[in-house]
Amino acid sequence: MAFLAERAKHAENALHEENRIAEQLERKGRRVIRLNQGDPPLYFPTPKYMIDAYVRALRQGRTSYSEFTGVGELREAIMRKYRRQGVPLNPEGVIVTAGVSGALRSLNEALISRGDRAILFRPYYTVYIPWLRMAGGYPIFENYNESDRWNIEIDHVTKSIKRLKQGNLLKKVKYMLVTNPNNPTGTVLRRSILEEIVDIANENGILLVSDEIYDEIIYNDATFTSIGRLAKGMPHVILNGASKNYDATGFRIGFAAIPETDRRSMELRKAFANFASVRISNSTPAQYAYAAALSNAVEHKRELKRMVDGIEDRVNYAVKLLAENRHLETVEPNGAFYIFPRIRTDGLKIKDDRGFTTKLLKEECVQVVRGSGFGSPSHFRMIALPPKKELELAINRINRFCKRHSK
Amino acid sequence: MAFLAERAKHAENALHEENRIAEQLERKGRRVIRLNQGDPPLYFPTPKYMIDAYVRALRQGRTSYSEFTGVGELREAIMRKYRRQGVPLNPEGVIVTAGVSGALRSLNEALISRGDRAILFRPYYTVYIPWLRMAGGYPIFENYNESDRWNIEIDHVTKSIKRLKQGNLLKKVKYMLVTNPNNPTGTVLRRSILEEIVDIANENGILLVSDEIYDEIIYNDATFTSIGRLAKGMPHVILNGASKNYDATGFRIGFAAIPETDRRSMELRKAFANFASVRISNSTPAQYAYAAALSNAVEHKRELKRMVDGIEDRVNYAVKLLAENRHLETVEPNGAFYIFPRIRTDGLKIKDDRGFTTKLLKEECVQVVRGSGFGSPSHFRMIALPPKKELELAINRINRFCKRHSK
Repeated sequence: MAFLAERAKHAENALHEENRIAEQLERKGRRVIRLNQGDPPLYFPTPKYMIDAYVRALRQGRTSYSEFTGVGELREAIMRKYRRQGVPLNPEGVIVTAGVSGALRSLNEALISRGDRAILFRPYYTVYIPWLRMAGGYPIFENYNESDRWNIEIDHVTKSIKRLKQGNLLKKVKYMLVTNPNNPTGTVLRRSILEEIVDIANENGILLVSDEIYDEIIYNDATFTSIGRLAKGMPHVILNGASKNYDATGFRIGFAAIPETDRRSMELRKAFANFASVRISNSTPAQYAYAAALSNAVEHKRELKRMVDGIEDRVNYAVKLLAENRHLETVEPNGAFYIFPRIRTDGLKIKDDRGFTTKLLKEECVQVVRGSGFGSPSHFRMIALPPKKELELAINRINRFCKRHSK
Repeated sequence: MAFLAERAKHAENALHEENRIAEQLERKGRRVIRLNQGDPPLYFPTPKYMIDAYVRALRQGRTSYSEFTGVGELREAIMRKYRRQGVPLNPEGVIVTAGVSGALRSLNEALISRGDRAILFRPYYTVYIPWLRMAGGYPIFENYNESDRWNIEIDHVTKSIKRLKQGNLLKKVKYMLVTNPNNPTGTVLRRSILEEIVDIANENGILLVSDEIYDEIIYNDATFTSIGRLAKGMPHVILNGASKNYDATGFRIGFAAIPETDRRSMELRKAFANFASVRISNSTPAQYAYAAALSNAVEHKRELKRMVDGIEDRVNYAVKLLAENRHLETVEPNGAFYIFPRIRTDGLKIKDDRGFTTKLLKEECVQVVRGSGFGSPSHFRMIALPPKKELELAINRINRFCKRHSK
């Protein structure tokens, strides 16, 4: 009889699997350039006006439990954010969570019974899988198309759903999850693609979930469209929060927005609220800080611009340096702050992406994440948040590393 | 085909089930005395030195993700807390969680497969059940004995385990969970009882879990003993955190301590760490604030004394007023801040505890929680945190209510 439950083996996060090697190197006195985790406050200090709001909440004694679905002020500020975009959200449709991670957990807990399925697109954000698998579900993989700038392969989705229908498996599909802007590719999905996805979800009665945690980190002339603007009348869930746009990962405040009021949306809201009641509360002062930030359009616009301009500059610089490496091929990002180069392993004496990242870390002290951790082998993900000098140092090492291992 | 997963129906929290009635009353202009949730900062402001430490962390830019198992400074401070008590804990044995709730979730996720069992004692803290049931497990109930000041009925436990053995069910028992000091009874368990429980767990290879979140809120001459001091060599888990002793529920920082290093403890540590990696991080500045508080023995001692003296005074006052009511019978608490009176329904024209609490709320605007929400019908739980004037007002209403409904 096993001591641990089966689900424990699904709890893994590819972003951190090489932390131990990195720590060993650091103990030996080496400096590791960590490009594995997307943590903006390490490079762009969390805006002062948000820290001030957080401090104000603390000084005002906002240190008790909050309402379990989130403080009213915050849920109303989130409602206003979406109403401004034409999404008909009410405060009752907002459940505050411990980051998008907390929302993903509730989503899977609410919907996934053993053997259920969810449609995910490769490359996916790595922790979608453990949440789904821990709840007893299995992914059905569709693809973002690298040759179409990582947009969705609609034809493939249509065919795949047809097959699911024929196999009587469609009823097991509990949701379809898109990530826009994407992690790990840094792609902002085209509006026309999103419209097609909405139609497919609608026609087949599939709940559409859109992880939009990077929705304001948009650059290189891209335009972002929330699923909430397209999905009129169709049940859907938007995941978002303070971590990235508001540069406050350590606050641990995210949310699930469920705008519609059809039967399924109402059931899902209720389930999210019930899970929240068992979890009791999220950080109370952090919720007030995020509410204040959402309500301060002037400061937010200025601070966001500063960060996004910086990210655009760093991403484009990194992509340019990576282009000097004939063993890599990179689609230029236009959202978030990740770069997801393809490794042309045919020209290298390295077998796969895992070998690539482990050797790169051990030999060059640069920590990136293997593409197979996102469902797309032969790639790696790196963050482009550090200053250009640091990125240059890291990419010079990556390029040197590839040269050394070329056939 | 159900839209929601089966587990969603287990997500409920008795503490909040009458919130809607309370809110309706408030919308009508009535003032509701809410004695349903144990939230000390509402009545004893979170100590200034902790707020200062929290503000310092924010001003120092500690707003990025933390290490997923918790910031090193905090895990070391927790280690020192236990080492001072003679518990051989290492920082690797500490996993920081989102309150004890977060630790309970990981515990059940790590251990409970469908059909597994956990031994719980009635009355239990209400959310033990949803965490267990959502993971697919079932409780086996033992009892705290009201006539022995809510200590454990050891004989019953021994007999019950014998029966489980005979039925070949013992192998399904994944843990036994005691709450000390207890919620909802306010009882500090006697050391001799704990020693017997440790022996039983040890002899039967059952993992012992001790929820000690109120371990410093001890009064009326009671003495608290951590399971960590008794369980030498036996795998066990201690749950604790900032919420109650440090008067900071809204920080959302708790932890699981797994002191031993036998095979099962090491497996469990690894599982907790893996779950933490999927959850990414807890509030970073709040962890620094709690670390600072744990390391400031002088301030903590002073602030704790102020709060515990206040609680002792309020609890004893409330118990005295409740004693004037011949329809209630109350065991005097000596820890935490709950009172759990027995309702002598035979003398009342009210059928059960649910009827009692709902009517009390509707007629007298006093919100308490039904005992059946803790597995012990014919009782209710109230908090004794508000000032004596407020407690007096509430209990006068309770007494008036009972008189009005007496047979």
